[in-house]
Amino acid sequence: MKVLGIDPGLTRCGIGVVQGSIGAPLQMVSVGVILTSSQDPTEVRLLQLEREIQLWITEFKPDVIAIERVFSQHNLRTVMGTAQAAGIALLLAARNQIKVVMHTPSEVKAAVTGSGRANKAQVSKMVLNILKLDEAPKPADSADALALAICHIWRGGGNSKVAAALAAEKTRIASLKKTGTAKK
Amino acid sequence: MKVLGIDPGLTRCGIGVVQGSIGAPLQMVSVGVILTSSQDPTEVRLLQLEREIQLWITEFKPDVIAIERVFSQHNLRTVMGTAQAAGIALLLAARNQIKVVMHTPSEVKAAVTGSGRANKAQVSKMVLNILKLDEAPKPADSADALALAICHIWRGGGNSKVAAALAAEKTRIASLKKTGTAKK
Repeated sequence: MKVLGIDPGLTRCGIGVVQGSIGAPLQMVSVGVILTSSQDPTEVRLLQLEREIQLWITEFKPDVIAIERVFSQHNLRTVMGTAQAAGIALLLAARNQIKVVMHTPSEVKAAVTGSGRANKAQVSKMVLNILKLDEAPKPADSADALALAICHIWRGGGNSKVAAALAAEKTRIASLKKTGTAKK
Repeated sequence: MKVLGIDPGLTRCGIGVVQGSIGAPLQMVSVGVILTSSQDPTEVRLLQLEREIQLWITEFKPDVIAIERVFSQHNLRTVMGTAQAAGIALLLAARNQIKVVMHTPSEVKAAVTGSGRANKAQVSKMVLNILKLDEAPKPADSADALALAICHIWRGGGNSKVAAALAAEKTRIASLKKTGTAKK
């Protein structure tokens, strides 16, 4: 199973690909961070993010996209950007007909370190060990993206409900025209 | 000037087109609401929204897209959906190289009714009068989309800063490849 992990963000969006299965060594395929400038208008940054994530999907053809579920414990401005970045990632998954699953930060921490309350350094260190890397990926956002992918593989691909619903929707999306829009 | 107003939402996204200029009667070109089912996964709903909004852009070729600026005074779940819907609208504006401006709910209310604290019924009534409609567009989300478009025209198209930044970015977007992405 090849999983594209995305730690959504407008300023820094962590992204990484991990391949493997439960009970076998996992392998990092690629890791990076998509940067957009806070000097640019939001719409330009979202478009850049869309194009960059699409490049990763096209290049690595993941079986699944795992995205960190956004919470609003941070400040409003950050949350809006993060929610929109996550929305772009979700949109791309649907458009490319790739299964997508969201994991909460504590699910990811628990899967990778054994504790839902682990800090960033602990997560980075475990990602390093699990993937047998020489050095921890930086910034932390990219390590988080790998942790998300690892979490998804180790949880056994979970959330079959979403996958089933998405599969059922494929036909409808393909034939989607103007349904649901009422014009006067 | 032809303005596409969007009142972003995942369950109900109000959308409407108004044509006109300051000091001349405004005319409604079209109005509607894009509905997506809460039974569907978020990614499917976002994809549907993207396709529907694109149909409106393709059909009406607006000069400007006006979007309601999202605030988080409501519950978290709603705000996430609204932020993501607004993100899709912003993305489409950038992709279609159409100027996009966000207006706050109170800016819209003030422009249309003269009071930033007007209620939904007052906004609907003024939209009805301004556009000389026989009946108020329903649901309220569609009237809000028209109010946004009216607000944009009456504010004189404001926010030239965003437009200038977007224009400056066009070249960069067109030539965008893998800049900003560091892979290992």
